[in-house]
Amino acid sequence: MRFPSELRVAVLGGTGPQGRGLARRFAAAGLDVVIGSRSADKAATVAAELTDVVGRPVAGDDNAGAARAGDVVLVVVPWEGHAELLHELVADLAGKVVVDCVNPLGFDKQGAFALDVPEGSATQQAAAILTDSTVVGAFHNVSAVLLDATAPLDTDVLVLGDEREATDLVQALAGSIPGVRGIYGGRRRNARQVEALTANLISANRRYKAHTGIRISDV
Amino acid sequence: MRFPSELRVAVLGGTGPQGRGLARRFAAAGLDVVIGSRSADKAATVAAELTDVVGRPVAGDDNAGAARAGDVVLVVVPWEGHAELLHELVADLAGKVVVDCVNPLGFDKQGAFALDVPEGSATQQAAAILTDSTVVGAFHNVSAVLLDATAPLDTDVLVLGDEREATDLVQALAGSIPGVRGIYGGRRRNARQVEALTANLISANRRYKAHTGIRISDV
Repeated sequence: MRFPSELRVAVLGGTGPQGRGLARRFAAAGLDVVIGSRSADKAATVAAELTDVVGRPVAGDDNAGAARAGDVVLVVVPWEGHAELLHELVADLAGKVVVDCVNPLGFDKQGAFALDVPEGSATQQAAAILTDSTVVGAFHNVSAVLLDATAPLDTDVLVLGDEREATDLVQALAGSIPGVRGIYGGRRRNARQVEALTANLISANRRYKAHTGIRISDV
Repeated sequence: MRFPSELRVAVLGGTGPQGRGLARRFAAAGLDVVIGSRSADKAATVAAELTDVVGRPVAGDDNAGAARAGDVVLVVVPWEGHAELLHELVADLAGKVVVDCVNPLGFDKQGAFALDVPEGSATQQAAAILTDSTVVGAFHNVSAVLLDATAPLDTDVLVLGDEREATDLVQALAGSIPGVRGIYGGRRRNARQVEALTANLISANRRYKAHTGIRISDV
């Protein structure tokens, strides 16, 4: 399936490295993109930068405005503000496909590690808060550095969700990025380990001086 | 690094599909392999089968005998008996590199899901019990079906541990299987998500009618 080009993609937290990189790639794929940020001014600045870089208009707004504007809304905010932001946006996100991309990780001298989440995972937390949205988990393990560039990537995106139409849509969205496949990875209850796997990739990045990603073989 | 051919590899639970497949591949790589089982008779039967299949002698013993015989000892037993077996083998495994390959998973009508482990992961549970061994986690995501065959695999093995010499050794062991690379994946505290990721691969296997594995890109 191709991602329907009439659908608008919103990226909340689109001024951070990961969100900016995803917004850039979706815009470069010809999709209609709006980035959100806590500051509408900052969103406008980064949107203007991306418009220049991609050569296609990218819009910017505060997170609530971007949430309302998007048909598919990616949540790419720091874990610390995750629950609070989603509580604020419950009404704005009603009826939409919400793609949670957040990795609950801690960092210390030994590197990254997974944080415990009462709901099990960031994706499950989003689903618990956004009861009128369809929540999918995806884009957890994609290097921000490689996203904010033009070279094709070499990675798959595991897509987690309980509603087939929504996971198919998000797989198609992932597939709009050159070198990326969206692969079904199970239900939301199996999101935790995909989020946490980012800690392992960070460990591998240190060891191998790389920007690692994952590929699923035999698919 | 090459796995030193003078080291003997023991596979506890070597009569189960995953253990049998690993034992077969290590024997086919020219390594000295002994499989362990709760029943020494069953171990001897499967060892004789593998000897026939591989064309090289594979030994069989009960788990304690295999544990004593191995320099590197893989634990490939069902999660249900994991802690109990390791408590029994504390003395037999002292001073050895123990490779925990166990995935704490549950299954219901919706498929596989990760179980909570008090110590965090099977690997951390092994390390908590086997205080005189060096515990590494590895081989969690490798298809038993593909292992018990001769075709090269198409997968990487994430190796988790806190002692560099041991993780290097287990990476070399993984690399003895055609088509497999052993990739450092972080410390034991990050083993949980690699064990649990098997639930996602099982979900993908169902969806795609495949025997999925993972590859790490950019390494």
